[in-house]
Amino acid sequence: MSFTFSRTVRIEWGDCDPAGIIFYPRYFEIFDASTALVFEAALGITKFEMFKQLEFSGWPMVRTHARFHKPTRFGDDVVVTSTITFGRSSFDVEHKLTLNGELCVECTDKRVWTLRDAEGRLKSFPIPAAVLEKFQEA
Amino acid sequence: MSFTFSRTVRIEWGDCDPAGIIFYPRYFEIFDASTALVFEAALGITKFEMFKQLEFSGWPMVRTHARFHKPTRFGDDVVVTSTITFGRSSFDVEHKLTLNGELCVECTDKRVWTLRDAEGRLKSFPIPAAVLEKFQEA
Amino acid sequence: MSFTFSRTVRIEWGDCDPAGIIFYPRYFEIFDASTALVFEAALGITKFEMFKQLEFSGWPMVRTHARFHKPTRFGDDVVVTSTITFGRSSFDVEHKLTLNGELCVECTDKRVWTLRDAEGRLKSFPIPAAVLEKFQEA
Amino acid sequence: MSFTFSRTVRIEWGDCDPAGIIFYPRYFEIFDASTALVFEAALGITKFEMFKQLEFSGWPMVRTHARFHKPTRFGDDVVVTSTITFGRSSFDVEHKLTLNGELCVECTDKRVWTLRDAEGRLKSFPIPAAVLEKFQEA
Repeated sequence: MSFTFSRTVRIEWGDCDPAGIIFYPRYFEIFDASTALVFEAALGITKFEMFKQLEFSGWPMVRTHARFHKPTRFGDDVVVTSTITFGRSSFDVEHKLTLNGELCVECTDKRVWTLRDAEGRLKSFPIPAAVLEKFQEA
Repeated sequence: MSFTFSRTVRIEWGDCDPAGIIFYPRYFEIFDASTALVFEAALGITKFEMFKQLEFSGWPMVRTHARFHKPTRFGDDVVVTSTITFGRSSFDVEHKLTLNGELCVECTDKRVWTLRDAEGRLKSFPIPAAVLEKFQEA
Repeated sequence: MSFTFSRTVRIEWGDCDPAGIIFYPRYFEIFDASTALVFEAALGITKFEMFKQLEFSGWPMVRTHARFHKPTRFGDDVVVTSTITFGRSSFDVEHKLTLNGELCVECTDKRVWTLRDAEGRLKSFPIPAAVLEKFQEA
Repeated sequence: MSFTFSRTVRIEWGDCDPAGIIFYPRYFEIFDASTALVFEAALGITKFEMFKQLEFSGWPMVRTHARFHKPTRFGDDVVVTSTITFGRSSFDVEHKLTLNGELCVECTDKRVWTLRDAEGRLKSFPIPAAVLEKFQEA
């Protein structure tokens, strides 16, 4: 099962470096926020509410792989399209960032679904069935 | 003459700190982006285009004063209302950030309009009449 | 009673914007880290350890006032000198950031010492006597 | 030819998220700064001076691949060891970030050496022989 969510993001002056182009760590901030919005689109609740309503203590990044094809600049309105695919206690998100239809960045993330144990440590945990069902209905 | 612009901003997970509330330097990133949007709303061009089309090399901050009344959290959709008032070669921007109508942050900025001199140094410069006219018409 | 702590900070490429100078919100990140180091210098423990060992749940910013006299650039090694003055349940920190002895930024912060109440809300709380004593001995 | 540079970095409160661990985009800020320090260690000049003294207009990221093994927290002093390997007009940097000797993050970057053409566009350019010589002597 996969699910796709798109949004437009303005690249800001403060995202850019002295070369006049985006400072690439900012892309990961954008992709992190997009991942939360993927879940919000499917579940109808924010990540803040997910912590309260679900067996959920966060989704630490396991690995990410990004390729940068073209730079973007402040004032650019880019489109970020994020596709999620679920495993048992992990999920992958593939982000494509385009400007005027041209691919600028591709990034694939693997994250693990976690729940805190009795000592407060983050442990991997199966993604709740209720979450998967919401994505299937979406 | 003054001009006001409002927008809604989502506070993101990555904006927040281990206390679960926004890390306050992020507010200044939000206010900086709002200042660019004030000009975009009045002039109809992005800050990127301003550098190309106007006698303009940036608006360095001279001073800023912020008061933090209530914290905000990831998932909050806050409203940022920014009011600009012009001097000759400087301008003030007053930002009010609210959540559900409650004032969370107030910030007043003073910035100087600059143009690079022959050696490439940023020098204060009178705000172009064409800019002021656009704000008056807006 | 007051206490002063200085450190040298490298301004990084990623701290700077398309004008080639530091993006001013980065200064607040620097000042925030300096504030933690003021306490670490006096108490001999990191902020992380403060949460565990002291009646302490953070020091939210109440207000900050910064004046920017000269810009700094990537590759600059600036000196940040931070002086703390204590109230009962709040404290002020005055930061001076210099480059080659020239004052670039001045910033004064007011923060409140907090402890979480039974519902988990941050409430102002008197600065523990043990903390004040350590500063007096330092 | 390869060259290795290590440094210690304090993970700051403002680098961390509501889970209390570092927000992973901050690692890329750390690795970006480490890359500049690799060159500074070998060339004896800052990145700022490289723009003035060398045929150099920046090193945009082409791709990066990071694996996150263990989280880090505010107050952690991590060691970042960065190894550079040169191609003709590109270079790879492998970063290993450890805490108390335990590997927390591995990241491999590919960047291209650029020079602006007559229209101001960033174009790939052979890494100057003088740069490679300095690394060989280092």
